[in-house]
Order: sequence, then structure tokens, then C-alpha cells
Amino acid sequence: MKLDNSNGQAPLASDVSTPHPEDEEEEEEIFVPPLNFAMVDNGIFRSGFPNSTNFSFLKSLRLRSVMCLCPEPYPETTAEFLKANGIRLYQFGIDGCKEPFVNIPNDTIREALKVALDIRNHPLLIHCKRGKHRTGCLVGCIRRLQRWCLSSVFDEYQRFAGAKARVSDQRFIELFDISCLKHHPLPFSCSRK
Amino acid sequence: MKLDNSNGQAPLASDVSTPHPEDEEEEEEIFVPPLNFAMVDNGIFRSGFPNSTNFSFLKSLRLRSVMCLCPEPYPETTAEFLKANGIRLYQFGIDGCKEPFVNIPNDTIREALKVALDIRNHPLLIHCKRGKHRTGCLVGCIRRLQRWCLSSVFDEYQRFAGAKARVSDQRFIELFDISCLKHHPLPFSCSRK
Repeated sequence: MKLDNSNGQAPLASDVSTPHPEDEEEEEEIFVPPLNFAMVDNGIFRSGFPNSTNFSFLKSLRLRSVMCLCPEPYPETTAEFLKANGIRLYQFGIDGCKEPFVNIPNDTIREALKVALDIRNHPLLIHCKRGKHRTGCLVGCIRRLQRWCLSSVFDEYQRFAGAKARVSDQRFIELFDISCLKHHPLPFSCSRK
Repeated sequence: MKLDNSNGQAPLASDVSTPHPEDEEEEEEIFVPPLNFAMVDNGIFRSGFPNSTNFSFLKSLRLRSVMCLCPEPYPETTAEFLKANGIRLYQFGIDGCKEPFVNIPNDTIREALKVALDIRNHPLLIHCKRGKHRTGCLVGCIRRLQRWCLSSVFDEYQRFAGAKARVSDQRFIELFDISCLKHHPLPFSCSRK
């Protein structure tokens, strides 16, 4: 029932505990996207490691899956959040400190790409620790599959990596063999018929 | 008619001029996205000024509209490309050299926002000259409507503006009155029910 308090009277104690639609609308929640958050394309997002301050934002994205590219055990609080919201976690552990990144098995990136391109996993959030290197490499491979010219792929990589951009990551993106994924259906903006 | 050249014979002159589906697939076109291109959210893209090298990429996006934030007359080649592809052009001229940007009439940004949020105009590409300041301000206002915290809005603005980031733009984004657009339906990822 909608209560009219416009007569200026103080609300009753029982009213205070019942949120009014008007109050809810006024106290608008502010969303905190994870570090380096961005939309990659239809159904795919990227970011750094999400924490509890990002949960309400992530909830608003109605994610179906999260892909973590870090090898460390997934933090319990975040794992619980995913479970409570029916979000499936895919983990493809890639060592973040190792440079050159090219040492990581191509197989891991290939398997991660297959999961990322599978529309049944969308909306999907791909993340590593800072959303720069490992995420940047995976997104770079997605862009190659989308047939972006390398200068644009690197430009995007650098936009997220900033001063931490690595030539080795960019070399990895350039040399990664996409041929086995070429005929995978791409659910992206540039592939819609 | 599909011609079978698998017997190794040199193709006839007439065959050479007729592209085969196989050949088209092998000679894959490389896409050149415009400068600073990115996806903002469902149905909205951002970039710098597109030129003819970007046309095939833009075509692949199947845009319904382009919004230009520069006051100069639209280049003929690009206007023709839009016309030929049934893409509607919206122009909201904002002087790019004027700093502080806050001098521009709020009305122009408000009208541009209304067009940008109208799903009937999607997919839409918002662009200015370099995709940094004017586009960054408009996208910043969209993020405020999406209830992003200001630090994330500024972080995204700075990712695109880089060393050219302006405090005056960020102040504009912060102070822009979104109240009149608050009840506009937002067709974005974080607004889907």
C-alpha cells in the first residue's frame, strides 16, 4: 500500500522499516565496475579481478559465466557470490609474472577462446588480476578472429595495459595460430548477418 | 554455378573474373576499425572520425545511425557511404577546440543523449574527431545514467583521452544534470530485467 506522507507528519516507526517505492528510487545504488572494466563485444566483458564492491554491478550484468585467467585458488567470497547467482566459473590458470608470456601453452588460450566464443556461456566476464596482460592477450586473439588489423588490436591492448604494455604480449597475439578456430561461429557485432 | 578447378588446370580467363566462393573465403578481408573504436554497451559504439579505410568494418557493424559531434560539414565521401548503406546521420556540432568544454550548451548534450539512448537508432556509432573529448563527455554522461561511480567513469574517460585528458571534461561529466533523462529507458546490459 502506498502511504501518503505529504502532510509533513513524521512517519510511524512501522513505516520506516518498510521501504517505499519512492524512497528506493531516491536512494539510487551507485555501481562500481571492476578495475579496467569494458565491453568487448556482444555478450563478452573484460576486467581486472572483481571484489565484493563490484558484486551489485556484476549482478546487474546478469552474467552466465566468469572466466578467470589466474592460476591461484579463487577467493571464497567471490566464488560464493558466483554460486549464489548461478554464474559458472571457468578457470584457465596462466602465470601472470612470467615474461615473455609466449611461454604459456597455446593450448590454454585455445581452450579459453573456445569457451569465450561459445554463446551458451554468454554473457561472460573474462578477467585476470588487473585486466591488462592475460585478458589483453585473450581479447587480442578474439580481435584477430574478428579480422581486425594488428595496429587496431595493439592499440586496444595498449589502451588497457597503459605504461605496462608488453611487446611480448603483442608478439603472442600476432603469432597465435587462429586457424583451428577460424570456422567457429563468431557471435559478434561484425559477424551478424 | 560452382566450377570445379580441382583437376589442377589453369582457370579460363572468364573464370578469373568471376570470384569463386572458395577464393573469397581464402582472401579474407582485414577490418580497420576507426581510431579509438570501442563498444560502449549494447547497440552503442564510439570512435574517432571514420574515413574510407574504415568503411568495410563499419559496414560489418550493420549500423542504423551515426552521431557526429563535430560542427564542420560532414565529409562528402563519408556522407555518401552512410547514404548508400541506409545509415542515418545525426550531427550535434560541438566546438572541439574550446576549453573548458563546460561552455557548450547542456542542451546539445541532452539532445544528443536522447538520440543515443533511443533504441530505434541502434546500432549507433558516436564519434567526434579523435574519440577522446567530445565522445568521452557524452559516454561519461551515459555512464552516469547507468549509475557508474565517478572514479570508474573518469577511469574510462582517461583510457581513451590518454595524455590529452582534461579536468574540464571530467568536471562537465560530473556536473551534468541527468535528472531529466533518469526515467528514460536504458537499453543497456546493466538495465536488462
